[in-house]
Amino acid sequence: MKEKIYHGIGVSEGIRVGKALVYGSRVLPHADRTITAEEVPAELERLQNAVEQAKKEVDRLIVCASSQLKGTEAEVIRGQKTFLSDPAFCPAMKKLVKEKQYAPEKAVRAVTEQYASLFANMDNAYMRERAADVRDAGRRLLRYLTGSETVHLKHLTEPVILVADDLSPSDTIQFDRSCILAFATQKGGKTSHTSIFAKSLGIPAIVGIPNLLEQIKTGDTVILDGQQGTFTLSPTPQTTEVYSARIKREEERKERYMQASRQNAHTLDGKRIVAAANIGSAADAQNSLAMGAEGAGLFRTEQMYLSRSSAPTEEEQFAVYKKVAKIYGHRRVIVRTLDIGGDKEVDYLGIAKESNPFLGCRAIRYCLRNEHVFLTQLRAILRASVYGSIAVMFPMISGLQELRRAKDMLQKAKEQLKALHLPFDESIPVGIMVEVPAAAIMSDILAKEVDFFSIGTNDLVQYTLAVDRGNETISYLYDYFDPAVIRLIQHTSQAAHTAGIPLGMCGAMAGDPLAVPLLVGLGLNELSMPAGSLPQVKYLMGRLSAGSCRRLTEQVMSCRTAQQVRLVLQDYQNKNKE
Amino acid sequence: MKEKIYHGIGVSEGIRVGKALVYGSRVLPHADRTITAEEVPAELERLQNAVEQAKKEVDRLIVCASSQLKGTEAEVIRGQKTFLSDPAFCPAMKKLVKEKQYAPEKAVRAVTEQYASLFANMDNAYMRERAADVRDAGRRLLRYLTGSETVHLKHLTEPVILVADDLSPSDTIQFDRSCILAFATQKGGKTSHTSIFAKSLGIPAIVGIPNLLEQIKTGDTVILDGQQGTFTLSPTPQTTEVYSARIKREEERKERYMQASRQNAHTLDGKRIVAAANIGSAADAQNSLAMGAEGAGLFRTEQMYLSRSSAPTEEEQFAVYKKVAKIYGHRRVIVRTLDIGGDKEVDYLGIAKESNPFLGCRAIRYCLRNEHVFLTQLRAILRASVYGSIAVMFPMISGLQELRRAKDMLQKAKEQLKALHLPFDESIPVGIMVEVPAAAIMSDILAKEVDFFSIGTNDLVQYTLAVDRGNETISYLYDYFDPAVIRLIQHTSQAAHTAGIPLGMCGAMAGDPLAVPLLVGLGLNELSMPAGSLPQVKYLMGRLSAGSCRRLTEQVMSCRTAQQVRLVLQDYQNKNKE
Repeated sequence: MKEKIYHGIGVSEGIRVGKALVYGSRVLPHADRTITAEEVPAELERLQNAVEQAKKEVDRLIVCASSQLKGTEAEVIRGQKTFLSDPAFCPAMKKLVKEKQYAPEKAVRAVTEQYASLFANMDNAYMRERAADVRDAGRRLLRYLTGSETVHLKHLTEPVILVADDLSPSDTIQFDRSCILAFATQKGGKTSHTSIFAKSLGIPAIVGIPNLLEQIKTGDTVILDGQQGTFTLSPTPQTTEVYSARIKREEERKERYMQASRQNAHTLDGKRIVAAANIGSAADAQNSLAMGAEGAGLFRTEQMYLSRSSAPTEEEQFAVYKKVAKIYGHRRVIVRTLDIGGDKEVDYLGIAKESNPFLGCRAIRYCLRNEHVFLTQLRAILRASVYGSIAVMFPMISGLQELRRAKDMLQKAKEQLKALHLPFDESIPVGIMVEVPAAAIMSDILAKEVDFFSIGTNDLVQYTLAVDRGNETISYLYDYFDPAVIRLIQHTSQAAHTAGIPLGMCGAMAGDPLAVPLLVGLGLNELSMPAGSLPQVKYLMGRLSAGSCRRLTEQVMSCRTAQQVRLVLQDYQNKNKE
Repeated sequence: MKEKIYHGIGVSEGIRVGKALVYGSRVLPHADRTITAEEVPAELERLQNAVEQAKKEVDRLIVCASSQLKGTEAEVIRGQKTFLSDPAFCPAMKKLVKEKQYAPEKAVRAVTEQYASLFANMDNAYMRERAADVRDAGRRLLRYLTGSETVHLKHLTEPVILVADDLSPSDTIQFDRSCILAFATQKGGKTSHTSIFAKSLGIPAIVGIPNLLEQIKTGDTVILDGQQGTFTLSPTPQTTEVYSARIKREEERKERYMQASRQNAHTLDGKRIVAAANIGSAADAQNSLAMGAEGAGLFRTEQMYLSRSSAPTEEEQFAVYKKVAKIYGHRRVIVRTLDIGGDKEVDYLGIAKESNPFLGCRAIRYCLRNEHVFLTQLRAILRASVYGSIAVMFPMISGLQELRRAKDMLQKAKEQLKALHLPFDESIPVGIMVEVPAAAIMSDILAKEVDFFSIGTNDLVQYTLAVDRGNETISYLYDYFDPAVIRLIQHTSQAAHTAGIPLGMCGAMAGDPLAVPLLVGLGLNELSMPAGSLPQVKYLMGRLSAGSCRRLTEQVMSCRTAQQVRLVLQDYQNKNKE
């Protein structure tokens, strides 16, 4: 067979060579038909069997999910169970088979689409998302009806490169992850579920590969390069050799990264920069230590509030914060208070639907309006502060008055604990996220009243450029290398240093190797990132000189567009290549 | 009768003394009942009569609306006609009277609510807004059924102060405006329809007055003070005297303002500042001249695109721009290119529903994606430029690359006109709105490539503070006196002056008398505002010295909160009071 090279969007780095497993529900040619009256009883039985099997599988997955999977994934599966057990959903399909003599596949598709479009048009984000559950449930039924390769995924005996048209959340949930070398899909973009999933697991992946499924068969040898976005079917021995050499180099590089991750991060010329992790749970905290985290620069506390029906109690929160504090020991854990609202809706908190949620009542704004929720969290954080090195950080601060109100609440929480004779760190450090442009602009004033800053680039970019980071139409404008953003970072850095407080960063920029020399040059004292990025960033920092980074920064400050900034940084990266 | 003073939210300034007209559909005590079988025919006839009358009235209002009213108000009335003529809406009411023996009032209310909630829950902003039309149509029917005072409003013979629970758009449309001295309502807030309506007409108004309707009767003497928000029922002779003196002073002041409006605006010490108008149509342009406009600092071109089913053609636009250019003659007219999207939805332009429209594909972003729409407008503007002094302004520019792309399009439009041998001003000035924080931050770079800046404070505040200006929950954060906003204005001013280009402002701040001394001190060259604000602002400017404004500005620049800024400005205002 001749070598064939496909190109797609590389969404998770890494090169893998292996056998392809072509997965997915290719539609049977005769599925979309009507049947004869005589066929009805047999087809009804076939549909009933598929429903039974699907229900059993979902029950099995729920058990597995509660032990092994993250909250949101488990939710996805429970959503399907709801529909498969719905008193109307499956019966509606049977009715179509009986009365209209639809083939079961056609009936499943018709009812699924009807339900999905009903949910998709509802005036409530939660209900709209249920459309995906309906479709997942439909797909699962189809899979049993058409007999596609679901079964293989549960019983993989050797590692494979998974090839599919697209992967749904419930597809990904049932993989034996140790047997999946990489993914490649025909559909999907940078922000699709598959991409996020692959990246979070560190599995190389390419999405959006046109015509991927035309020639490939299960068992074909393929090479997937997640960085370049190239997918080679039936590689020649020469191609295989080239990639083998690259894989070897990649492994050696990884080993160097892991070695670097075991030491505290500092530049060649001895400037110390804390390399910390962004975490959302005690499990993340534990995992981050293995990757060389020197603390948690951002502990997102929202996860505790999502996927439940009421707010977590003080005791529940205290238990989690205490556990995380103990995991990090003497290392600093920066607990960010509830950043709810924006794109994170929580029904029981009673946040009204807003026209522009990113410009709405979110984070500290919500907490200052809901003192009870805020005080409960602050008390839990304070109580945990005696078990490690905890700092508290307020998100979305837009000015001095808001900061003072938040600090007043912290004081109130302290007094409540004192009245109860509960111990806490009286001098717990207090910081703010610098993510609203106003906070960056007024950073010289704010710096005098906090113990540290942490720049949140994701929101700072969004507001400075007036671009919703989730809006694909205008994503070309969303760029943390925009000179306006870099000026705000520089201004904030000067303010922090003048006031003598440390400056961190916990947005996506902090974990980008291309950005690191610039951030060192801009005087950042801590970079906090997803744990998976730590080894490479720590390795990179060890090869930089702070002096040369400062010169680079001067060059960047004279750029007039994001494109120019990128070119300067790429140039620097190439010159300093290992 | 004893004098009684009520307090509410003053939303439109001015003092008025007069007779009250208590207006509105107070619900009849027996309206919400069922009727006997014998009553059905008579009640059906009563309902039918109300429907007929309501339809007739609406038809009459539509005729009146097309000559006299603004586009949106006419739309409101047409919406009601749609429902009153709907083949199901009124018949559904009759059915309830016939079959369930509802009193007509109860039937109207039931069907109206059913329809309104249907529309209110739709997944489309346009359809959701129709819920208000349904409710208006229902209210109109109720008014005919319950026989409330609608009739008075059409035949007012003497000026009255209108007192109501609340006023709907269709209430306000049928007033004989020359007979309405002022409004006072029990319901409503600063941004409710009544408030905006009163302000736009310059009629003094107070909203949100608790218990307003408890004692008052039509014919009672009242005094309404729209600035203080006080409403005095049955004033004593002493009170009347106090207010009469104040009214006299107010009138004298207005006369002084009008005198000032007839000269070009400049400070006491001779600094020239252009006082221009924000306009949306040729009618606005004409009106602004009477108020002393020295040009149009912002000609909003969206109005031509709203309330129609397809985009205006080049010829249609050309005709309007030409008319406006001729009205102003040698005075400068700054035409802002289409600022669509955000809160302004236009179905035929095909803008997708966005999660955060203010951070979405709006204004220049939309135009750069829809070259045909953009080029059509640019050609129309260019062609009009030979009939007066026209400048073109791009909204929502966030950086240099975007500006250059927009200028390339203008160049393309020029070449298209040249090919057609159509005349235009080859050196038409090109400017940008500075309203995205990034543009203000990078203003030194942008200033080198444009002929002028105009700061749009409404959006600039919104993005700098990450606050949706329409979100009432967090409106306390939305403040153009926030020090972060003022720093951005100062930075932009320095950039403009270094580059030698004029700096204007066309947001709400430019028409605020409290802000004017600061804006003079910050070096603004043009203030553009609603025409109604021009006389007072021009008068005020003539009493300011640029030097003292600069000292004031220095003081403001050291403030750390919006509250402090306000205090400093109020202090200055009080010291300089006439």
